[in-house]
Amino acid sequence: MNDLAVHLTDGKDKHLYEQIYEYIRDEIKGGKLLDGEKLPSTRSLAGYLQVSRSTVELAYDQLLSEGYIESVPYKGYYICRAEELYRLCVQPEEPGQEEDDAGSRTQPSAAFLGRCGRESGTGRSCEIDFSPNAIDMNAFPFGTWRRITRETLNDDRKELFSLGQSKGDAGLRLTICRYLHSSRGVNASPEQIIVGAGNDYLLLLLQHILGRNICVAFENPSYRRAWRIFSSFAAKTAVVASDANGMRVDSLKESGANVAYCMPSRQYPTGTIMPIGRRMELLKWAGGAEGRYLIEDDYDSEFRYRGKPIPSLQASDREGRVIYVGTFSKSIAPAIRISFMVLPPRLLERYEKNCAFFSSTVSRIDQTILDEFIRSGAFERHLNKMRKLYKEKHDLLLEELKPLLTKYRLSGEYAGLHVLLTSRGAAQEEELIRRAAQEGVRIYGMDEAALTPAGKKEGKSAATLLLGYGGLDREAIREGVRRLRGIL
Amino acid sequence: MNDLAVHLTDGKDKHLYEQIYEYIRDEIKGGKLLDGEKLPSTRSLAGYLQVSRSTVELAYDQLLSEGYIESVPYKGYYICRAEELYRLCVQPEEPGQEEDDAGSRTQPSAAFLGRCGRESGTGRSCEIDFSPNAIDMNAFPFGTWRRITRETLNDDRKELFSLGQSKGDAGLRLTICRYLHSSRGVNASPEQIIVGAGNDYLLLLLQHILGRNICVAFENPSYRRAWRIFSSFAAKTAVVASDANGMRVDSLKESGANVAYCMPSRQYPTGTIMPIGRRMELLKWAGGAEGRYLIEDDYDSEFRYRGKPIPSLQASDREGRVIYVGTFSKSIAPAIRISFMVLPPRLLERYEKNCAFFSSTVSRIDQTILDEFIRSGAFERHLNKMRKLYKEKHDLLLEELKPLLTKYRLSGEYAGLHVLLTSRGAAQEEELIRRAAQEGVRIYGMDEAALTPAGKKEGKSAATLLLGYGGLDREAIREGVRRLRGIL
Repeated sequence: MNDLAVHLTDGKDKHLYEQIYEYIRDEIKGGKLLDGEKLPSTRSLAGYLQVSRSTVELAYDQLLSEGYIESVPYKGYYICRAEELYRLCVQPEEPGQEEDDAGSRTQPSAAFLGRCGRESGTGRSCEIDFSPNAIDMNAFPFGTWRRITRETLNDDRKELFSLGQSKGDAGLRLTICRYLHSSRGVNASPEQIIVGAGNDYLLLLLQHILGRNICVAFENPSYRRAWRIFSSFAAKTAVVASDANGMRVDSLKESGANVAYCMPSRQYPTGTIMPIGRRMELLKWAGGAEGRYLIEDDYDSEFRYRGKPIPSLQASDREGRVIYVGTFSKSIAPAIRISFMVLPPRLLERYEKNCAFFSSTVSRIDQTILDEFIRSGAFERHLNKMRKLYKEKHDLLLEELKPLLTKYRLSGEYAGLHVLLTSRGAAQEEELIRRAAQEGVRIYGMDEAALTPAGKKEGKSAATLLLGYGGLDREAIREGVRRLRGIL
Repeated sequence: MNDLAVHLTDGKDKHLYEQIYEYIRDEIKGGKLLDGEKLPSTRSLAGYLQVSRSTVELAYDQLLSEGYIESVPYKGYYICRAEELYRLCVQPEEPGQEEDDAGSRTQPSAAFLGRCGRESGTGRSCEIDFSPNAIDMNAFPFGTWRRITRETLNDDRKELFSLGQSKGDAGLRLTICRYLHSSRGVNASPEQIIVGAGNDYLLLLLQHILGRNICVAFENPSYRRAWRIFSSFAAKTAVVASDANGMRVDSLKESGANVAYCMPSRQYPTGTIMPIGRRMELLKWAGGAEGRYLIEDDYDSEFRYRGKPIPSLQASDREGRVIYVGTFSKSIAPAIRISFMVLPPRLLERYEKNCAFFSSTVSRIDQTILDEFIRSGAFERHLNKMRKLYKEKHDLLLEELKPLLTKYRLSGEYAGLHVLLTSRGAAQEEELIRRAAQEGVRIYGMDEAALTPAGKKEGKSAATLLLGYGGLDREAIREGVRRLRGIL
């Protein structure tokens, strides 16, 4: 840490916490800080660097969430074991390098969001619905969308009404590519991007690209919809064990699966962030045999309310084993049926050979509107606004939940659009949900995301509730939790 | 024919030729005119009824194209053998019965069109491209589309930005249902309609609904894209023989297939209209065993320039064996990625059970715009305009081709967007295409639609050229044929 102090600059280009985070990260990657080594306490490092303690805490938080360090209660922070460390190849976007429109903002590219409609429950009208899938459409920039739509349709642009390229329009693919690179560290050329009408469709297409002899591994619980798609439509699936770091590689190996479906940035529904060590293990597994792939569902990776966004798994992939899947359903609106996947070169070849004749499923008009929405900077502004809005809801919910934390353990906070409450006692999930419903409050249980045939987790486990706040206003959150306090 | 004269009314509601057609058709269906019976000549019937001969010719044409009668050269017209005759259940739409918008036209529902993008070749810019897939976008009502889009996006209608129903929005499905009923005689409830992003996607979904143990029969040549989709994506396919009436049922039986892909209203690429007798044979085959289905691809059934539209095969289906597939790509624009299929009740049940969790692939905004485009009457006006425009191009092309008809036989005229020229001599398809290309004219060969692995028809057959006129203006048609006359 000796030369960290000299490196710190109080410039505008980088926050202090970010500089501290990067310095330590690089020391770990460079092998200068070794496995199991203890880090200075936040207080002592803050004192040494002459910065506030919260700055150091932020840096440590980031290192924690990316899995570089771990926190041992009452002891402190320790460097984690990592199979092998990769460097991200993210080059910061040069200002002016991007094709900029007049209206474009110069902020570094904002966060990239995730999916909506995770079996979005609309619920009864009188209810306060803590759906983990709802998003807030009140803040949608309808005016901007209308203006871009109008401008797009002007001048009788006939070419927009023709059938576009199978993969999606080149312009939109380039825009997505740049966006993914700057916000998620995804390394890809526009050729690798396939635009399609929603994740469900892309997963269907992906099965055809992967071929018939695949077995897809899922954690349990996981994103049931993806699991249903893979298990209904021809492919074999396997359920593998997970722990606090995400999918367990030993269990994955035992399962015999050759494709693993994972959500490293924030697992649904557990909220688990996969640390760097586990990521490396997974990548190593994938590289270990021909035909192995990791599907990275990056559905809401960028609604983070603390620290920097966690880089994608794809960003660490050197051997072309990660299929990155993202969507605009959650970040813009569920009706915008535009998702995309990034294929590694081997699968791109197969796509070109076997599936490229397949017509695009997205209207060119819609693609052009979305492209302009992103390139004009409107998307970025929208994301920043939404993140702020969701953070306020998140903070309020945490505040309101405090009295419950003697009986429940909180997890999954500081990111996404839901938190989890796990009973410290013997409460039954179904019973809690039923009682909440009687009070006009709809809450969700972890069991709903379970993949085992009975729809339950195997063995007995503590009741875990999912509380989504995206679709509720402040008053509804307050009132909802007030009612829950009487029940839980 | 004795009481036909009394029945004829010179009213405005029905053309004379239509009344004659209906009278004879009903006589045949009622068993009053029997198999093999000779019809009066057009001249004698015209004289008897005191109508023009061309009126009788139109009626006979219609009966011919629907397979009720056949023409024997130098002899006259005879009643055809039909396995069994069904009555259409088409009830004419009552004016005012439909939910009418202010702008709605009261014309009886216009024709329903077909598909675009049959591997639409764009061609080199200097070429005159007789692509059978091109459509004319110059006449597209951009202004109307813009206005409807603007109105749809007004008032911040948040619900439009949410994820809609899996099958498509109820409103659009109802509109499609009514439209299909009045224009194509399709008998279905809105529940049976599945809206999806393009035919390719719907065929993919259909395979999943039909399950794994299917073998799909195709004529040869046929619509290669559909064949590729079925043969790439898990299902088995079979190629069966066809004759001048379309797919041969004896060959279909031999193939062991349980699903047959056909285009009864106008086969692509041959332009064959399947007569009623063959339709009945096919329906009988389908009803003959559990799990047999007919896929009716009704891609451009309604661009007919003579006589009434030919009813759909689905309209004659009493046992729920026909899956009707249609699209708006050709009738509106290829970019409008909205197609639909009508599932028979048995398959609808399977869809509900296995595929209904699948998210819709079409944006609700786009669905709403299309719904309004149809309901406001703009679609009907557009279709009528396009039919007139295409008919003019068709007539001009036929006129220009006349000098070539000593060496080539013309077929597939009076409907669709292309005609066929078959060499009466030993001309080679590839050679003709190559020579045309040297003159800057792009023409297409029947071989391109062949399904056999080598991309060729089996055995030797006469060179057959496809000449599409949808995308060419009058000057290009004239100049193109002028150049072709020097080559062919």
